[in-house]
Amino acid sequence: MKFNELIDHTFLKATATPEEIRKLCAEAKTHQFFSVCVNSCHVALAKAELAGSSVKVCTVVGFPLGAMAPKAKVFEAQNAIAEGADEVDMVLNVGWLKAGQADAVRDEVKALKAAVGHRVLKVILETCYLTDDEKRLACRLCVEAGADFVKTSTGFGTGGATPEDVKLMVEAVAGKALVKASGGVRDAAAAKVYADLGARRLGTSNGIAIVSGATGTGY
Amino acid sequence: MKFNELIDHTFLKATATPEEIRKLCAEAKTHQFFSVCVNSCHVALAKAELAGSSVKVCTVVGFPLGAMAPKAKVFEAQNAIAEGADEVDMVLNVGWLKAGQADAVRDEVKALKAAVGHRVLKVILETCYLTDDEKRLACRLCVEAGADFVKTSTGFGTGGATPEDVKLMVEAVAGKALVKASGGVRDAAAAKVYADLGARRLGTSNGIAIVSGATGTGY
Repeated sequence: MKFNELIDHTFLKATATPEEIRKLCAEAKTHQFFSVCVNSCHVALAKAELAGSSVKVCTVVGFPLGAMAPKAKVFEAQNAIAEGADEVDMVLNVGWLKAGQADAVRDEVKALKAAVGHRVLKVILETCYLTDDEKRLACRLCVEAGADFVKTSTGFGTGGATPEDVKLMVEAVAGKALVKASGGVRDAAAAKVYADLGARRLGTSNGIAIVSGATGTGY
Repeated sequence: MKFNELIDHTFLKATATPEEIRKLCAEAKTHQFFSVCVNSCHVALAKAELAGSSVKVCTVVGFPLGAMAPKAKVFEAQNAIAEGADEVDMVLNVGWLKAGQADAVRDEVKALKAAVGHRVLKVILETCYLTDDEKRLACRLCVEAGADFVKTSTGFGTGGATPEDVKLMVEAVAGKALVKASGGVRDAAAAKVYADLGARRLGTSNGIAIVSGATGTGY
């Protein structure tokens, strides 16, 4: 398996400058990553930098808390697509999930999928805050809402992907959605673990370390 | 000085449930805080809970990274006002500020002020990521853009308010905007320090500890 094709090359820090986004895009072209994953203010820049390449632009919505109003998440997604986003990684409403408001959670994901259309919608569960039952419920709601991927983590919570969570999510979606592991995917060994468990996308800022077999640093 | 009138009673965790927001609103009524500060998915609920009271609804926009696309920040603010928000605390684009894109930073704040109209717009600088010169520049840009307040911190960065930063910001805005201290305002002693330095609003989840003179915990 070629890890480069699994990687969303990610840089989501508040402090990210346009220069850093240009560097991220250049790296993604060099290593032929699947996409770059950037905050929505950088979508137009990333699209321009990646023109003529096969690297896609992935952005985040309602990120990282997931507590933005549903209409605002829909608008942020639509605006990002208008500015060039190919894929949208939304954060689900964690508080509503934990309160048992399953319909509200599902309806929001459904509204985002309608806004994103044929493009790929990934739904971040932020597993560090969820019980195993809540993770399974979230996977079910995402499948019912038509999400393309369920994704473990924002990288801004109290924890990132774990092998246990990726395994649970792969089983829970049962082939009706794909799984993205993100947060703490630091090196080739970790990438192999997640890929072997069935993850079909890896969100990481350590993509270069992963494809070169080196040990990465940071998120 | 009555601290209660300075306090935006704040609960912004990803995991916040409607029940926790109801409790926050009840506490704000009991202690007559200035407002509750909640994520935008909770604005309508907070507005309903606070009906008939003088406690205002404050919400956050582009929170906490500030890296949302400007149009999405504008929409989130407009939608929050339509759902009942009285005040909007936006996060400025930290990456653009650090890259020296002063016009882009100012234009975004100006667009938010136009969207918010006569309501109060606070601009979070996220001082933990800025040099003193960047803090002063941010204050100047916010004043030029018509912001009502500059605010130190989201509470989700690497640091919160400090007496040094509040002093710097009060001097930098020179009476043309007010200052809100937030992040790490834990007890009455800290509140008094910030108020004495000229802060005219305090963002904290420790409002009850502050008004009762007890020692608070957490953000």
